[in-house]
Amino acid sequence: MSSRLLEIAKKFNVFYLNGFEKNSCRPFIVCGQQVGLIRPDVMKELIKYPEVFFIRDVLKDDKSFETIVELNPAYRDYAERTKQVDTILRDMRTKGLFDAALKGWRDECYEVLNIHNVSLLKMDRSATCLFGIRNFGVEINGYIQCPDRGLCIWLQQRSSTKQTWPNKWDNMVSGGLSVGYGIRETAIKEAAEEASIPSCLAEKIVSAGCVSFFFESERGLFPNTEYVYDLELPTDFIPFNADGEVQGFELLPVAECLERVFSPEFKTTSCPVIVDFLIRHGFITPENESHFTDVVELLHVPLCKLFTYRQSKKMENGEKNGQN
Amino acid sequence: MSSRLLEIAKKFNVFYLNGFEKNSCRPFIVCGQQVGLIRPDVMKELIKYPEVFFIRDVLKDDKSFETIVELNPAYRDYAERTKQVDTILRDMRTKGLFDAALKGWRDECYEVLNIHNVSLLKMDRSATCLFGIRNFGVEINGYIQCPDRGLCIWLQQRSSTKQTWPNKWDNMVSGGLSVGYGIRETAIKEAAEEASIPSCLAEKIVSAGCVSFFFESERGLFPNTEYVYDLELPTDFIPFNADGEVQGFELLPVAECLERVFSPEFKTTSCPVIVDFLIRHGFITPENESHFTDVVELLHVPLCKLFTYRQSKKMENGEKNGQN
Repeated sequence: MSSRLLEIAKKFNVFYLNGFEKNSCRPFIVCGQQVGLIRPDVMKELIKYPEVFFIRDVLKDDKSFETIVELNPAYRDYAERTKQVDTILRDMRTKGLFDAALKGWRDECYEVLNIHNVSLLKMDRSATCLFGIRNFGVEINGYIQCPDRGLCIWLQQRSSTKQTWPNKWDNMVSGGLSVGYGIRETAIKEAAEEASIPSCLAEKIVSAGCVSFFFESERGLFPNTEYVYDLELPTDFIPFNADGEVQGFELLPVAECLERVFSPEFKTTSCPVIVDFLIRHGFITPENESHFTDVVELLHVPLCKLFTYRQSKKMENGEKNGQN
Repeated sequence: MSSRLLEIAKKFNVFYLNGFEKNSCRPFIVCGQQVGLIRPDVMKELIKYPEVFFIRDVLKDDKSFETIVELNPAYRDYAERTKQVDTILRDMRTKGLFDAALKGWRDECYEVLNIHNVSLLKMDRSATCLFGIRNFGVEINGYIQCPDRGLCIWLQQRSSTKQTWPNKWDNMVSGGLSVGYGIRETAIKEAAEEASIPSCLAEKIVSAGCVSFFFESERGLFPNTEYVYDLELPTDFIPFNADGEVQGFELLPVAECLERVFSPEFKTTSCPVIVDFLIRHGFITPENESHFTDVVELLHVPLCKLFTYRQSKKMENGEKNGQN
C-alpha cells in the first residue's frame, strides 16, 4: 500500500508539489487582496483586455519585484466587477479560448470571497480554475458497521452526463458551497439531492475537519478545501439519486474501497476525503503506510499561506470603502 | 472561541509562520541529506569547529547559492559521527553555551534518521533543538463517554521536576520514539509508564493520524510530528502515574478542556493533538470556529517540504557506501 498512497497524494497535489515553485503563476488581486493565481497561458490572453486587468510589477520585499494581475480597482462595486469579468469570459468563450474549462459553462456562479468572507464578485463555476480561485466544498463519508464485513463505505458513481469527471467513482455526497447556505446546511441539502438521505438521518452528520490540496489539470488550477463530514448510516439504508447527477451507489468494505481509490476510475480530487477518513478511523496507520506523515501533511497543504499577497493598508482601506 | 484557537495555532507554529521565511537558518546536512535547520546563534559557535562542521556555499538552483552546514562527510560511520558531535556538544556544555537547551542534558539519545529511516548518528535529546532535527513522538487522547457530562477527556499534569514544561497540563499520554520500539508499541509502553493503563486496555488505541507543527523557543527549533491515537476508556478507569513524571490526572468535559488548552498552564506543544481531537470528533466545527480551515492547515504544516535539501545523486551514493 505504502507508495501507492503517496503517489495518489502527489497526483491530487500536482500543482502544490510541482507547479507552485516554478513561480510562473501570478497573484490575482481584487480589492487589494489576492483571491487567485494565474497561469502564463491565461495571462497571455488577459493582457488583451488592459482596461479590465492591470498587469504590473509591484515591490515584493525590500529587494525584489513581482508581477501581479489586478482587476481594475476603479470598478465601483460587486455588480460592476461581476459584469466586467463576465463580459470578458463570454468573449473568450466565443473565441473558443480555454475550451477545456469554458466548454463546461454552467450559468451557475461561484462567489469570489475576500478573507473576511465578503463577496467581491461572482463568476461562472467553469471559469474559476482559469483564475486559480480558492474553491470550498462539502463531502460526506457515508458508512455502515456491517456485522460480517466490518466497516463498509458507500461510494457513488457520477453520471455519464456530468461536465466534469463523468462516470468516475466519488464519495457518497459532495457539493460546492452556494451563497445563502451554511456549510453544514449545504452538506444536508446535498445529502438529500444526491443520495435521498432524509433530514432525520442527515442531521446526524459529524464534522470531522477539512482537507486542502492544490490540483492542476488541463482545465486550470484547483486550490481546493473540502469540509468533511462523517455519517454512520443504518445497515438497511440504501442511497438513491434524486437529481440525475449520479448513476449509482455501491457499498464497499475498506480494502476494496482503497483499491477503488487507487484505480483510475476514482475522481482524483475526491481521493483526499476518503484517504483522510481511512486515516482518522485507524485503517491507514504508521504501521501499514511507510509514508504516513507525508501523506497526512499532503491532505492539508497550507493554502492559507499561498494566497497572501496584500496591498498596503492604505490602499486596502480605500478599496473597502468602494465595496458597497 | 474563533480567534483564540488561531492564536494558539500561531503560537505552536511560531517558527513556521514567522521564522522560516526570514531565511536566516541554514540546512544541516549529514550524509548528503538535510536532517535539520541551524539558527544563526548556533552557526556562530559551530564555525569554531571547522574540522567537524563544514560551512560552505552550494548552488541552490541555476541562479543562486545558499549556505549549508555539513557534518564532515569523511566520517566513516554512525559511531564516528555520533562521537564527533557528542564531543563538541559536551565542550559547548562545559563552556556554558546554549544553557537553555543543554542544561537539560539527559544522557538519553535521540536517533537522527535519514529519509529511509536509517540512523545516521545519535545525539543527546537536549541538543536536537540546536540543530533543528525533526522530532517524532506519540500521544494518546484518553476519553470517556460520560452518561451525564457527555464526552470527557483525561489530561495529565506534568511533574514539577520535569526538565521541560514542569507543572504544565498535557495530554493523557505522550512520549518520544525510542530506537527498537515501533510507533504503536511506544504508545502502549508509554500508556503503562505514564498512566498505568494495562495492556488489555492500551491495545484498544486507534490510530487517528498525526499532527505536524514548527515551534521555536529560547531552547531552539522544534519541527515536531506527533503520531496520534485515540483511546476510549471505561468510565470507571482512573489513570495513575507509574514513573514519577506526572503529578496527577484530571477528567474534563470538552468545554472545560478547551479552556485549559487556552490557558497559559497548558504545554504549548501539546495543544495540536487535543485541538485535532476536538476537530475530528465534531466539537470544533466550521460553524463555531471562523478560522476553521486555517487552524486545520496549521495542525499539519508541510515539514516534509521544509527539509528537502539533498546533494547530487553522485555524492549521495558515495555517502551511502560510507554508512556501514
